[in-house]
Amino acid sequence: MAEEVKLFGFWSSPFSRRVEIALKMKGVKYEYIEEDLTNKSPLLLKYNPVHKKIPVLVHNGNPIVESLVIIEYIDETWKHNPILPQHPYDRALVRFWAKFIDEKWPALRNSTFGKGKEREVAIGEACEHLKTLENELGDKKFFGGEDIGLVHIVANILGIWFGVYQEISGLELLTEEKFPKLCKWIHECVNHTAIKEDIPPRDKLIEFYPARLRAASK
Amino acid sequence: MAEEVKLFGFWSSPFSRRVEIALKMKGVKYEYIEEDLTNKSPLLLKYNPVHKKIPVLVHNGNPIVESLVIIEYIDETWKHNPILPQHPYDRALVRFWAKFIDEKWPALRNSTFGKGKEREVAIGEACEHLKTLENELGDKKFFGGEDIGLVHIVANILGIWFGVYQEISGLELLTEEKFPKLCKWIHECVNHTAIKEDIPPRDKLIEFYPARLRAASK
Repeated sequence: MAEEVKLFGFWSSPFSRRVEIALKMKGVKYEYIEEDLTNKSPLLLKYNPVHKKIPVLVHNGNPIVESLVIIEYIDETWKHNPILPQHPYDRALVRFWAKFIDEKWPALRNSTFGKGKEREVAIGEACEHLKTLENELGDKKFFGGEDIGLVHIVANILGIWFGVYQEISGLELLTEEKFPKLCKWIHECVNHTAIKEDIPPRDKLIEFYPARLRAASK
Repeated sequence: MAEEVKLFGFWSSPFSRRVEIALKMKGVKYEYIEEDLTNKSPLLLKYNPVHKKIPVLVHNGNPIVESLVIIEYIDETWKHNPILPQHPYDRALVRFWAKFIDEKWPALRNSTFGKGKEREVAIGEACEHLKTLENELGDKKFFGGEDIGLVHIVANILGIWFGVYQEISGLELLTEEKFPKLCKWIHECVNHTAIKEDIPPRDKLIEFYPARLRAASK
């Protein structure tokens, strides 16, 4: 039986894009279904009734949701070109850092798009989180293992999306001056051949987010 | 070389207890180190500099933190008596539900210990989360697979801790009348031989939490 792989996503979502990167690293062919997030399809709601969100991967009729859960599924289902390292301790480390970046993302986002006091608090928190990453990175070339993998895929959210949010909001937090190692590492991540082609054009994102924010504040 | 396995924990922590359950399911011998959370040890801060929290598992000198990451590490290191199922799709499902319970825990906790408006909002959210679990459970005997595993270990936080918090706060939300299937399942979980002996005595928890809350509000 031919495999059926479908991805319900949205072009500007970092969570949707990371699943696409994982599928392409494995060379898995898939059908991509762009969702209208203002009018979600009955299929999306059927496949992800709990969170009603993209991304959803549907493999031979079985839906998998939550981007980190999906990437582990992809790595376990198509075993070539591993995304997670092989040794349990290395696996634990990359799971820890991928989780760390995702858990700290709301503070990073609010440091740019938050309002008033909420934004002020978020800037302080975001700065601490970036310091943690800068310290952890040290002189390693690829944070979370020597080969490109889970943490690099997840780190796009810093390299691309946080950069765009900073530009729109005028915040200057994640700069080469303040976080030289992290900036260098992020630059290498987003320019890696396995990743570069699957991130949306920066100018499209710069155009998209202010309009979305205006719509959300109406 | 003899294996060295150490666990830094705290007796009343559901996150610490779940790691103990996983180690015992595997029959792994370990040294347990009870932390004083009001005066954390230099070793804990050394091993978990990012979050400075228990539980921390140290295996042959390598520290692993975050309870779900630790349990996956345990399952991958000692492969007998598997905690996660074998098939990638089943693994994705248990990872999803374990994450769901952990992510919703703050709302559940705040529905009992929160104050004023925060508590009111949390009660509404907690009710929705419990409904999601009740609906998902359906008529399955063991939610998250037929065998006892990751979701059951994680669900102790509902079966024991949420029950204790409810009793202390006078909230009556997770009751047999409102959530019959979930209550039945939780009862089976916490009474399973693999779990029962590793949960702290209910009367000790009932005594402990109000005192801790009084200390926290001083």
